[in-house]
Amino acid sequence: MQVKDLGEFGLIERLIDMAVRQRAGPDNGGPLGFRLTVDAGDDTAAWRTGVATELFTTDTMVEGVHFTRETTPWRDVGWKSMASNISDIAAMGGLPTYALVTLGLPPDTAVADMEEMYRGMLEINNQYGVAIVGGDIVRSPVFFITVALTGVQDGQPLLRSTARPGDQVGVTGYVGSSGGGLRLMLDKTAAPPGAAEYLRQAHRRPQPAVAQGRVLAQAGVLTAMDISDGLADDLSKLCKASGVSARISASQVPVHPMLRAAFPSQCLELALGGGEDYLLLFTAPPHVMAQVMPQLPEGAAVIGEILAGPPGQVLLADQAGRVWPVGPAGWDHFRGDPAPGQTIP
Amino acid sequence: MQVKDLGEFGLIERLIDMAVRQRAGPDNGGPLGFRLTVDAGDDTAAWRTGVATELFTTDTMVEGVHFTRETTPWRDVGWKSMASNISDIAAMGGLPTYALVTLGLPPDTAVADMEEMYRGMLEINNQYGVAIVGGDIVRSPVFFITVALTGVQDGQPLLRSTARPGDQVGVTGYVGSSGGGLRLMLDKTAAPPGAAEYLRQAHRRPQPAVAQGRVLAQAGVLTAMDISDGLADDLSKLCKASGVSARISASQVPVHPMLRAAFPSQCLELALGGGEDYLLLFTAPPHVMAQVMPQLPEGAAVIGEILAGPPGQVLLADQAGRVWPVGPAGWDHFRGDPAPGQTIP
Repeated sequence: MQVKDLGEFGLIERLIDMAVRQRAGPDNGGPLGFRLTVDAGDDTAAWRTGVATELFTTDTMVEGVHFTRETTPWRDVGWKSMASNISDIAAMGGLPTYALVTLGLPPDTAVADMEEMYRGMLEINNQYGVAIVGGDIVRSPVFFITVALTGVQDGQPLLRSTARPGDQVGVTGYVGSSGGGLRLMLDKTAAPPGAAEYLRQAHRRPQPAVAQGRVLAQAGVLTAMDISDGLADDLSKLCKASGVSARISASQVPVHPMLRAAFPSQCLELALGGGEDYLLLFTAPPHVMAQVMPQLPEGAAVIGEILAGPPGQVLLADQAGRVWPVGPAGWDHFRGDPAPGQTIP
Repeated sequence: MQVKDLGEFGLIERLIDMAVRQRAGPDNGGPLGFRLTVDAGDDTAAWRTGVATELFTTDTMVEGVHFTRETTPWRDVGWKSMASNISDIAAMGGLPTYALVTLGLPPDTAVADMEEMYRGMLEINNQYGVAIVGGDIVRSPVFFITVALTGVQDGQPLLRSTARPGDQVGVTGYVGSSGGGLRLMLDKTAAPPGAAEYLRQAHRRPQPAVAQGRVLAQAGVLTAMDISDGLADDLSKLCKASGVSARISASQVPVHPMLRAAFPSQCLELALGGGEDYLLLFTAPPHVMAQVMPQLPEGAAVIGEILAGPPGQVLLADQAGRVWPVGPAGWDHFRGDPAPGQTIP
């Protein structure tokens, strides 16, 4: 069997299972009071120390797979490579701290391009309080960048596995704008003035929801993850991890007016299936949700509810009262486009 | 200018300089008592928390650059990808704790090969007490594996930058065996019975010197790094970081009898220039050295001394009483073979 037959998430599941089941060594952190509290499978790993919960995550971009020079200038490659990692820390309710940067470089890579990329990393790092403290540079036939990032959290990390039937489902902002920006650039679609700029920025300069994650954790929300692969797909993953299903309402999914203006007939599809928004998806009982929503700095929306249905199922109720299964329909880089039956009608 | 003109270490220096000089964000660990104590440039980064020093490192292997399927079976790729990281933690005197594993995979990668590689990772992890707690899998036209590893240390981390004139220079075992194993496989050299097996194992299954690093730190040694790029090259890096030079004696460099048997005329060159031994190189004043040497579990040797010469210079005294400059002569993947004038005569 080849990796493309099993898919990214099938392979991850199989290797995580090996790594956890066959783990048998000494726990070197134990004598110092370290205790692993979130194992492989959530947005980040986490362990308690005597003073805090520490978070640990990694994310990679490969040229030609995750970006091209046409859609993403080097400075934005730098920004995005950090943003996706910071977003994972945000999804736990934590603050990002230290980063290691690994570059895989063809020998003819321009030094000036790498400096420009570092400028983008420094811009987001200085905004979010991340310090690059090391890394590795290797020769590679294809450009790639891997960031490993630590974080800290002084309470209980937000998890994917704690959603319960009766919870409401929320998102911390407009979904689909990053996917709209990408489609605009790939298809060279014409867009109304302002919309093109807004959508391109949403794709190239996503703003991880660190402040929002802190608010959620402090307000007693237990369940969250970041939207990196698309709302429907990520909600399905959250539901699967929690052993529940979800129903969301098309009319409640927040779509930015600029996305609607540029893609009047495709904006819902982009909102459900477009990735890299780096918003937070979260669930909580209605009374917690009512308290937390007004506190979220950039607005948020309740889009549906958690049900005791088949684990991982996500249903979409449209404005005509019809209900469609929509997840998982996200992007799997090994498999290409989602199966036709899984796309939004 | 392209990366190949500047070289791996030139580019690292330039980007580290940007990352450190232009760092201006909030320190998110500060309010929790975290304090960065070892910044970019040593074997690992390190920060103090209220309870311990934490260590953070990363290392990558790219197929066709760092290994080939001919020289390194998948199980050993797994072992080595962890070993190089564990060795960086060992070089600080720490214990390894948690790992994130990133795989870049062509879609036709065999799932069975990845499982075999994970077996190799689990073997070394269970021996050294490392737990894989997450990671990332991405599509890539070339196979690569990046490991990010944390560690803990309850005293003062060993640094590259603390060598002083008058220190002696030590190594924790036989150097050059890994390089000998690689050359044996690449050149298909005939070797005496036993030697081939020993050298291949040295290349494929290096044993990071975690126990030795602990002994060094506890005995009051301040200065160490691991030998990954070759003794002469790594000693030159250590000297550069400390602003000193070194003189080593050819007759004192520990060469395994099997390496000498297989490569009678090249064994010194391999000992000085062959990489991936993952031993520790350390320096200390003679009275500290005299105390620590008998405590090292697998033997060690004093091979020279630190001098107040040009920073980074490494001189080799041969048995005929001649003195040669030998460092830096290590491998730079972007530049290919070391310059002819820098090889061992």
